[in-house]
Amino acid sequence: MECKNTRERLIDAAFAEIHERGYQGAALADILAKAGVHKGSMYHFFANKKELALTALKEKISAYFVFRYGAVATSNAPYLPRFFAVLLDASTRDFSKGCPLANMVQEMSNIDADFDATLKGLYGDLRATIKTILDKAVESGELKEGCDTARLALFVTVVIEGGILSAKASGDAQDFVAPIEELIKHIETYKKDKNETKRA
Amino acid sequence: MECKNTRERLIDAAFAEIHERGYQGAALADILAKAGVHKGSMYHFFANKKELALTALKEKISAYFVFRYGAVATSNAPYLPRFFAVLLDASTRDFSKGCPLANMVQEMSNIDADFDATLKGLYGDLRATIKTILDKAVESGELKEGCDTARLALFVTVVIEGGILSAKASGDAQDFVAPIEELIKHIETYKKDKNETKRA
Repeated sequence: MECKNTRERLIDAAFAEIHERGYQGAALADILAKAGVHKGSMYHFFANKKELALTALKEKISAYFVFRYGAVATSNAPYLPRFFAVLLDASTRDFSKGCPLANMVQEMSNIDADFDATLKGLYGDLRATIKTILDKAVESGELKEGCDTARLALFVTVVIEGGILSAKASGDAQDFVAPIEELIKHIETYKKDKNETKRA
Repeated sequence: MECKNTRERLIDAAFAEIHERGYQGAALADILAKAGVHKGSMYHFFANKKELALTALKEKISAYFVFRYGAVATSNAPYLPRFFAVLLDASTRDFSKGCPLANMVQEMSNIDADFDATLKGLYGDLRATIKTILDKAVESGELKEGCDTARLALFVTVVIEGGILSAKASGDAQDFVAPIEELIKHIETYKKDKNETKRA
């Protein structure tokens, strides 16, 4: 129990510090102080700050995707109303800090190959999860057959990430919500016409 | 002449180092070495690394907006074909480094008030420049009257920034181009119908 708690506290503290200050800006001493863990204990779990950071990003961001989008993909039809509600829900977003995944891509993708590989994987996971939702919406007859769901999933991801950035830049959460509303209008152009909808 | 060259070399070197490594990751010694300028000479122009960085961001990013989008706004009708061509043109973009403005927003907006104010101004300038293009397209009868150009300009900005981030994350320039193509399809839904177009 104690071991698990120590590891979890390190992961939580590393993620919070990196989200706040970036990887280069986050001091290991601050992470350890926040976690209430001695450096020696950290080495029992992680070789160094970088391994701790990469593990924290992988675990926390994956869990967040499952919480936010995975739940839609594993629910029941109709998928689009639930998906749109999740997209529009800004209540759990902290725009002042921005998206932890986007922040790390901006900061680290071009200066460290290990970060680049981890972030490429996480970004791919986000796109894949959104593609799964859109594929289910095609199967359920909400979206047209032949809709390029990979391309549309990329577009959704782009608007989410760009919207979070805009809200961070301006300090106005509406600068996230308005583009998401435009995105939803765009997705709706791929909806199956009512009179061609068939029951599965 | 010498004075101007020294200042320009400092601005160029600071911008390049910050674009490559971020503000916190860019060492003043590296900026000075790249510029070929002694620290003492720098103090003739800038009080410190931060003042140099803020000035470099303001001057270089503003000049880039004028080069890329301002030229469309000050051209002649029709505006949309030229605007779409500029949006789609990835030839001058370095996706491996990402957008210098977005990188700075991600890294600095929430941890330094001076950066926050400067970046808010630059991000607002980008949105305003794109709004001007869309307003001209309304005036010229390319877009519907009553089209919410402020909202659409925000959406365009969001897709540009999110698209650059996606291409940086994946290492694939097509992950910028495909979302821009979807964006153009969306903008086209605001086009005036041919038979309601009037000559100004």
